[in-house]
Amino acid sequence: MPLLVVGSVALDSVETPTDRRDDVLGGSAVYFAYAASYFTSVRLVGVVGEDWPPEHTELLQQRGIDTAGLQVVAGKKTFRWRGKYLPNMNDRETLEVHLNVFGEFDPVLPEEFTRCQFLFLANGSPVVQMKVLDQCPGARLTVADTMDLWIREQHDGLMALLKRVDGLVLNDAEAKLLTGDENLVRAGHRIREMGPRFVVIKKGEHGAMFFSEHETYVMPAYPTEDVIDPTGAGDSFAGGMMGFLAEQGNFEPKTLKEAMAYGTLVASFNVEDFSLDRMKKIERADLTRRMEEYRRMLSF
Amino acid sequence: MPLLVVGSVALDSVETPTDRRDDVLGGSAVYFAYAASYFTSVRLVGVVGEDWPPEHTELLQQRGIDTAGLQVVAGKKTFRWRGKYLPNMNDRETLEVHLNVFGEFDPVLPEEFTRCQFLFLANGSPVVQMKVLDQCPGARLTVADTMDLWIREQHDGLMALLKRVDGLVLNDAEAKLLTGDENLVRAGHRIREMGPRFVVIKKGEHGAMFFSEHETYVMPAYPTEDVIDPTGAGDSFAGGMMGFLAEQGNFEPKTLKEAMAYGTLVASFNVEDFSLDRMKKIERADLTRRMEEYRRMLSF
Repeated sequence: MPLLVVGSVALDSVETPTDRRDDVLGGSAVYFAYAASYFTSVRLVGVVGEDWPPEHTELLQQRGIDTAGLQVVAGKKTFRWRGKYLPNMNDRETLEVHLNVFGEFDPVLPEEFTRCQFLFLANGSPVVQMKVLDQCPGARLTVADTMDLWIREQHDGLMALLKRVDGLVLNDAEAKLLTGDENLVRAGHRIREMGPRFVVIKKGEHGAMFFSEHETYVMPAYPTEDVIDPTGAGDSFAGGMMGFLAEQGNFEPKTLKEAMAYGTLVASFNVEDFSLDRMKKIERADLTRRMEEYRRMLSF
Repeated sequence: MPLLVVGSVALDSVETPTDRRDDVLGGSAVYFAYAASYFTSVRLVGVVGEDWPPEHTELLQQRGIDTAGLQVVAGKKTFRWRGKYLPNMNDRETLEVHLNVFGEFDPVLPEEFTRCQFLFLANGSPVVQMKVLDQCPGARLTVADTMDLWIREQHDGLMALLKRVDGLVLNDAEAKLLTGDENLVRAGHRIREMGPRFVVIKKGEHGAMFFSEHETYVMPAYPTEDVIDPTGAGDSFAGGMMGFLAEQGNFEPKTLKEAMAYGTLVASFNVEDFSLDRMKKIERADLTRRMEEYRRMLSF
């Protein structure tokens, strides 16, 4: 089944303790779409400025990603983010954010896109996410991401959104902020009580937790020796997860669990290089191989 | 097979964001021994002062723990530790440490104890740990714990010890300190290169990692909603792990992995109340039940 993602498309500048890259391809919708493309056909909706290198669009198209929803706005600049990772490679500081054209992002979906049954609302304000949701009344599975900014500044809008989506994906710090609870197990259940049928809390190098009415579980991250750049780990996790669900065409508990594992593994590849550089070099077979290792690791 | 543990026996005072306890039963050897007692017969070696309540010894004996090696020194006081947990219940501050009689701990094992084939060197200086090792030349499996203090102040002694033990168990912060590497996967392998055949890095609420020449894996913690007091989690983890190995009488890779899981589960019970209060209320059957859940959680 085709999978629709709406979110940020960006040029990122990333500093790590040992290396740096400037103005490389990034953005939540980009990482998500690329990660999902191993599993299913993906439709991307986003906005960029006239400084956007067309080869980035071509790269996405080469993986079969439909970029008909990627709007290029003349006279404007693309969203830029600059960040710096601390030595633990898990925490980071944002050094600069220039929303540019993304600040006025008001997505209008191509007509064909509105019939997508699997929808992911990547990074964006709850107001924008809600507008997208309104354009896809027939979606069977809708999952949103969120971030600290919206939890703090658009709390009501986020609460309204949570009543309408099937799933929410967020990181551990965001889950604590949203609930005021430092225990992630309780936090996960509390968020579920805010509306979504399931909640995924991403814990970076420590894996991810899943919460539904009848299930609570944790999946550890795949142990990675060479974390080069964690940017996009959460989005590629979500892309792998949603891509697998869309491929399977269902979201039964069993499928969701396998999807969590695929998300974990795509993310484990993504952090092995800057931007999409590592993902560009892998195929579905590499994911299958790592999945065999991962299953072996978790069985005893 | 009987399992020997040598380490601290203490009276702990613990503050959490919502509650506190003063002068309760604690210490690395105590948590370890109690956790291991679900699996095998345990022999404890430690030292206490004349302020030691005899009912604590009785409690250990009730679980079949042989306390013949618990020395009571007249005119001295028991080791006391006071700590305070931060709201995340994972990080803590040490408010007071009074080594008291533990400061001069120079364990001489009862003759029968020296023939133990499974030996755990709990919290103690590498010099003391080495002395114990020297008294047990026939031990088939020797595993040590360590802490930041020894890594900083008795580095050479610790390095000498690592060349002689089969396994080392330490927490994530200690692994980073010992290797200067922030990546736990690399840190685990580097510690293994210092001598031990296997290394276990405990990550608190995030589980534990295992490293041997041919295997690297992560086991997530059992998701616990009610973390009341994390004191002794690491020691009860080690106790569950070593207890299972001693019960099985081998340390094949397969047995080690199951032992890691049992360690995880004993620790998950331990944090559900202060001191040994939660462990006092469980039996082996409770561990078996939680193990079924845990296996289900990790299979997909």
